[in-house]
Amino acid sequence: MAPESIRWNEDHVVILDQTRLPREERYLEIRDPEAMFEAIQKLRVRGAPAIGVAAAYGLYLGVRDHTGPVDQLLARVEEVAQFLARSRPTAVNLFWALDRMQARARELAAQHPTAPERVLAGLLAEARQIQEEDREVCHQIGLHGLKLLQPGMRVLTHCNTGALATAGIGTALAPIFLAHERGWPVEVYADETRPLLQGARLTAWELQRAGIPVTLLCDGAAASLMAQGKVDLVLVGADRVAANGDVANKIGTSALAVAAQAFGVPFYVASPLATIDLSLPSGQEIPIEERDPREVTEPFGVPVAPEGVPVYNPAFDVTPHRFITGIITEKGIVHPPYGPALRALFS
Amino acid sequence: MAPESIRWNEDHVVILDQTRLPREERYLEIRDPEAMFEAIQKLRVRGAPAIGVAAAYGLYLGVRDHTGPVDQLLARVEEVAQFLARSRPTAVNLFWALDRMQARARELAAQHPTAPERVLAGLLAEARQIQEEDREVCHQIGLHGLKLLQPGMRVLTHCNTGALATAGIGTALAPIFLAHERGWPVEVYADETRPLLQGARLTAWELQRAGIPVTLLCDGAAASLMAQGKVDLVLVGADRVAANGDVANKIGTSALAVAAQAFGVPFYVASPLATIDLSLPSGQEIPIEERDPREVTEPFGVPVAPEGVPVYNPAFDVTPHRFITGIITEKGIVHPPYGPALRALFS
Repeated sequence: MAPESIRWNEDHVVILDQTRLPREERYLEIRDPEAMFEAIQKLRVRGAPAIGVAAAYGLYLGVRDHTGPVDQLLARVEEVAQFLARSRPTAVNLFWALDRMQARARELAAQHPTAPERVLAGLLAEARQIQEEDREVCHQIGLHGLKLLQPGMRVLTHCNTGALATAGIGTALAPIFLAHERGWPVEVYADETRPLLQGARLTAWELQRAGIPVTLLCDGAAASLMAQGKVDLVLVGADRVAANGDVANKIGTSALAVAAQAFGVPFYVASPLATIDLSLPSGQEIPIEERDPREVTEPFGVPVAPEGVPVYNPAFDVTPHRFITGIITEKGIVHPPYGPALRALFS
Repeated sequence: MAPESIRWNEDHVVILDQTRLPREERYLEIRDPEAMFEAIQKLRVRGAPAIGVAAAYGLYLGVRDHTGPVDQLLARVEEVAQFLARSRPTAVNLFWALDRMQARARELAAQHPTAPERVLAGLLAEARQIQEEDREVCHQIGLHGLKLLQPGMRVLTHCNTGALATAGIGTALAPIFLAHERGWPVEVYADETRPLLQGARLTAWELQRAGIPVTLLCDGAAASLMAQGKVDLVLVGADRVAANGDVANKIGTSALAVAAQAFGVPFYVASPLATIDLSLPSGQEIPIEERDPREVTEPFGVPVAPEGVPVYNPAFDVTPHRFITGIITEKGIVHPPYGPALRALFS
């Protein structure tokens, strides 16, 4: 029902080319690391978890034809990993997945020093395992989040945190997919999410495709919907969660959180444990990337602003924890005070 | 310093063609009501006060060559007024200005029943008077608003409420133009204001042209600026103010008001008395126009959303008065409780 952003198919990877969305649902066969590099770099596959899975498969594709001894295979693993790491230098999941694949390669090499084919089989299994784990995390977040939903609810979301961003049914959209699967009527309001319009291009597409009623709106209109009592719940994803519960997420998230509190709407963040970083005391320590001003001044190549005007274009914002009703993880929903609640998840 | 959206020049009207902004500063000479109709309809001149002034001049242009008796002139006045009223059927100031010109025509006709040339001269004077009154309202709003500013302040604004929207120096931007005139450093953050991007296209342009530092941002980024303590004051305009102080203004305004309160930033609305409607008990009675979904799904002709997706595209939202620090009018700044304070302005 939810689209599949990435899957293994016998001897190659199939990815849904997200740059063609929403107008065309085109799948690409990826058979070598060069093609995977291009797909990651050009955002054909995007979303932190999906990028991790893509990188893991990409690494396997780059070594699977190896027939020499195991130490040469290990050298080749490092080489391909270094190559793929350059595809999107700010994607944390990319490095995480490549590190995990390299560590697994060394482990397998130690176990099977004279059987490169067993090392290769183990690497494919590891990539599939990374994908399976992400699928399961999404599913568990969905099950926990489902407790917040009731048939007929209207949920507002931001950016894209669905199947397209993960190897499963998404994070913030996971409870919605599960509710729909159970036959519950559920309506989604999707913020378009300027500047890159992931809400319009991706979220609206994947919900519409799944048959879930979705209404698109400009980011600035969300508060007025809440003020009118037309939103029962806000569900968003997270790029990083600090130890005190502050959440970095796509720019525009904090505005929703503040409006939700002002108008009495519960505001929940869906976040895998992997996104929670207890080493950061608060959101103040989360660096905010500023992006190309042209995303604002020239949307889709159309100049809309005077030449040379300075632009403030942060990729993310930090929502202070006091505006967050709860955080949905694969191990359950946590509520304030977040410090002890988040620490307990890891103990 | 501020651009002139509309002015009378000997025997014709000159308007700045706002559809060419921000890339081209082109002025049009308007010599007949047909050209004025086209300019209003195509948004070459826009902003409630500027439309009123344009309509008043347009009416005069349509009758000025009249040489017959005064009763025929009056009939012609009605005819041209009806024609111009169809140029933008939801613009309240359009009807207000045309009504005022018609009433003045009847008055002048009664005074000068045999001197059509004196009626005509009086009509031109009335149009100039409407313009002059708007210029003075802007200036007074600017002077009162200036009390809220201090050198070095950073002001966030939304949509376009500047010289381009009025016959003077604007409403919410008026204090900023006056501060700049006095040599005070002042910095403006301009929301781009989706869907129609008046902030990017018009506000950024007119401030940049006046030499006032302006930074453009997506609407969703405003709350994060306020959370970081980078905004000292929010100044917005109003489309309609109810008797209890609720304010209808461009979609996205209420989100700013809520964020301003959450992060301790004063939030002020600049509104001429003409925009305050004491017959409306609250914002609930203000009808909200929903606009063409294509403004959201196909910005600038580029399709960005899946076909057929439902869209929520309100032109305005209502900011509840509890989020508004004060309302700046040409008669001074009013504070809560707004009911008595607004009534006092009219007594």
